Amino acid sequence: MKNFLSIKDVPDLGQLLKLANSIKKNPLGTPNLGKHKTMVLLFFNPSLRTRLSTQKAALNLGMNIIPMNVSQGWNLEFEDGTTMNLDKAEHVKEAAAVISQYADIIGIRTFAELENKVLDYEDRVINQFVKYANVPIINLESAVLHPLQSFTDYFTIETYKPKERPKVVLTWAPHPKALPQAVANSFLEWMQKTKYEVVITHPKGYELAANFTKNSTIVYNQKKAFEGADFIYAKNWSSYHDYGKIKSTDPNWMITKEKMNLTNQAKFMHCLPVRRNVVVENTVLDSKQSIVIEQAGNRAVTAQTVLVELLNC
Amino acid sequence: MKNFLSIKDVPDLGQLLKLANSIKKNPLGTPNLGKHKTMVLLFFNPSLRTRLSTQKAALNLGMNIIPMNVSQGWNLEFEDGTTMNLDKAEHVKEAAAVISQYADIIGIRTFAELENKVLDYEDRVINQFVKYANVPIINLESAVLHPLQSFTDYFTIETYKPKERPKVVLTWAPHPKALPQAVANSFLEWMQKTKYEVVITHPKGYELAANFTKNSTIVYNQKKAFEGADFIYAKNWSSYHDYGKIKSTDPNWMITKEKMNLTNQAKFMHCLPVRRNVVVENTVLDSKQSIVIEQAGNRAVTAQTVLVELLNC
Amino acid sequence: MKNFLSIKDVPDLGQLLKLANSIKKNPLGTPNLGKHKTMVLLFFNPSLRTRLSTQKAALNLGMNIIPMNVSQGWNLEFEDGTTMNLDKAEHVKEAAAVISQYADIIGIRTFAELENKVLDYEDRVINQFVKYANVPIINLESAVLHPLQSFTDYFTIETYKPKERPKVVLTWAPHPKALPQAVANSFLEWMQKTKYEVVITHPKGYELAANFTKNSTIVYNQKKAFEGADFIYAKNWSSYHDYGKIKSTDPNWMITKEKMNLTNQAKFMHCLPVRRNVVVENTVLDSKQSIVIEQAGNRAVTAQTVLVELLNC
Repeated sequence: MKNFLSIKDVPDLGQLLKLANSIKKNPLGTPNLGKHKTMVLLFFNPSLRTRLSTQKAALNLGMNIIPMNVSQGWNLEFEDGTTMNLDKAEHVKEAAAVISQYADIIGIRTFAELENKVLDYEDRVINQFVKYANVPIINLESAVLHPLQSFTDYFTIETYKPKERPKVVLTWAPHPKALPQAVANSFLEWMQKTKYEVVITHPKGYELAANFTKNSTIVYNQKKAFEGADFIYAKNWSSYHDYGKIKSTDPNWMITKEKMNLTNQAKFMHCLPVRRNVVVENTVLDSKQSIVIEQAGNRAVTAQTVLVELLNC
Repeated sequence: MKNFLSIKDVPDLGQLLKLANSIKKNPLGTPNLGKHKTMVLLFFNPSLRTRLSTQKAALNLGMNIIPMNVSQGWNLEFEDGTTMNLDKAEHVKEAAAVISQYADIIGIRTFAELENKVLDYEDRVINQFVKYANVPIINLESAVLHPLQSFTDYFTIETYKPKERPKVVLTWAPHPKALPQAVANSFLEWMQKTKYEVVITHPKGYELAANFTKNSTIVYNQKKAFEGADFIYAKNWSSYHDYGKIKSTDPNWMITKEKMNLTNQAKFMHCLPVRRNVVVENTVLDSKQSIVIEQAGNRAVTAQTVLVELLNC
Repeated sequence: MKNFLSIKDVPDLGQLLKLANSIKKNPLGTPNLGKHKTMVLLFFNPSLRTRLSTQKAALNLGMNIIPMNVSQGWNLEFEDGTTMNLDKAEHVKEAAAVISQYADIIGIRTFAELENKVLDYEDRVINQFVKYANVPIINLESAVLHPLQSFTDYFTIETYKPKERPKVVLTWAPHPKALPQAVANSFLEWMQKTKYEVVITHPKGYELAANFTKNSTIVYNQKKAFEGADFIYAKNWSSYHDYGKIKSTDPNWMITKEKMNLTNQAKFMHCLPVRRNVVVENTVLDSKQSIVIEQAGNRAVTAQTVLVELLNC
């Protein structure tokens, strides 16, 4: 693997899964693989789980880590050819090339701004780093994708799946704030590489970009979608077509115990953080069907798997 | 020791003191005790001494450390059963359970807000973490207590005490800002486990909660209190009864050379940071009687002692 | 070396250069030299290259690093004898003495405020730390000097110089913001210890302090200055005499391909970050004559060299 930007960077998903399983069993099996290797983590946006789990993963491999909050005091220019006489103090061309000299791997976190769809979906911050850096880049969630989360989701489903071809339902849920589509996009991209039956359910107006929803069935009736499901993956996102807008906060879309009863004793999944009694009822989150904590715990496993792949190249 | 939240978690103070003495002599005696163990430090409030000394202590044991400033961008819900449709993005129930999967020990720093006594004295942030985490929690100063500081204070007094039962005076001192009672509360809680003669002196209206002042004598005349003292421990706190209020900034309560002359050549102690010529005169702080720097240095010793206890469980 | 505050702390520049060359060849040659040694980095101002390269350097030596952003929530008093009843919560006297107990080396970053020349040029923050700390201090850029950058500049010139006595031109360049003189001052201070032909060019009104410009020639005609140059070192600074003021933003002072053609195929240098098409034309920065990336890469080499010197004392 040269970079880890999306599932497209994974040459062999089966092999990756196998590696993740062995790391889960024995996270300290190769404590010196990353010795004298340094990972620089650039946080253009806040991070809790990704920050902690990626550091934990790197520590298990003996790596050095230099985390940087770059939101304050470091205003990067991503356009080519501009006259930089305003607020941007440094061009990504220099920044990426310079950091490449101090780092063996660079992780980048950058959110969608939800104002300009074309701009967000260029995923410019991470792609410009890829263009100008000389070391592998890890996507710690970008404007469009969150592959470390999706790999975790896939790994978790594989662990819990009750049958070879489980029914996996990605359901939109209400949220008071406009959120990016990255988690949902990326989840679907990974699901496309599996043989799962994938169903998406959301209010009209919340359709995701077609390249992510192909091979999935969209069912606008949430209860209908839940029938016979083995996994309910809940997530809010803002509108893709009416970009960044909140089209609904209808509490009827909250995941409830009653709706879970329509499923095949489905496991409840969410990438966290999750707003209790808004996205999902307490009774669901506190039930045995919820595997959100295990899912979050797997973040360290899959991050370590990706690091091993990158270090072994 | 399961957690280190207060002196109540210490099963044997004599044994703890003995361990601290041996660590002071040889801080690098067990450089691999914490190998492959990770401590996550969550700072809900700023920290200098605690942050540095706890990290130094952990490094001496070969631990990994992941510090996080959680004040920005991570708004936790601590109430049960709420509908989280406002500004709180994550419930402590998930947060604590998730971080427990990446950490072997969690340290938490959280100040009193000094607005609601009942709320502050529930010490909710740290107690909710204790409730929902699956790993030991260290109190890096909470709304009510600061046991790492108090253990340090006790350890320092033990080092310098001129007689078996020294007279220890906790004296209030003026300060322009309203400060929590945590350091004073916790100091008294630790003093209660000793045989020292403990005297508290402060202006009327500054009485601390009764459970902390029991076994101590309150003397409202500061000069009287200082007579024959072996240790003067100065600290400002805001009113407990008229909660969070500044009742006095009377400069006559500043610790002066003249007042120190009333003591038995007492050592001057303060947890730092200290405001010169407000809390204490320069001449006292710069005299040989002041042991504030040694006291602060001992923070690394006692933090390491606590870590050893937690790692050995 | 006791501290690394300026070139004045370097007893033997030739020996330092030799060490830097050997570290560049083999950065992991002494991976345990800094074992169990801790470097505390105090950032009173933001830092990217210095922060990353200094950490990378320390990691190559097996050191522990505790970086601290001290801009928020830690307001230090640097004056002696004041009554600290305003916003300053701690005196540097205590702060420096306390941190010295947790650190083996302290690095300090602090910018000029560009309001009061006398105050800035006292370089009080770093000098007060030197006064009150008990461990070596490294200047990570102070109000007046940036010796880690200048050592890097000197090391880079030594690597690329086409002849024994190259012509080195320090040229002012336009910038929309008022910047400190530290990089330029420090560069000249290091150049004074070499046999290079050093020429300074800038608009009238941008003269630097005389102690830095002595032994150099000031040429107000930039094109004239560039003639036959082997190195063009570009940097903006605000006025020293009309302190902190922007006297010119004349785009005619930008470094262009055309001007570079007047030189002896000079290498283009800049400490970065650099504003493209304001300080320097894209065509220069993207040409083979530009060595700014290699220059920045050398920051890790020289930082490691300085750390080795301090650790070996």
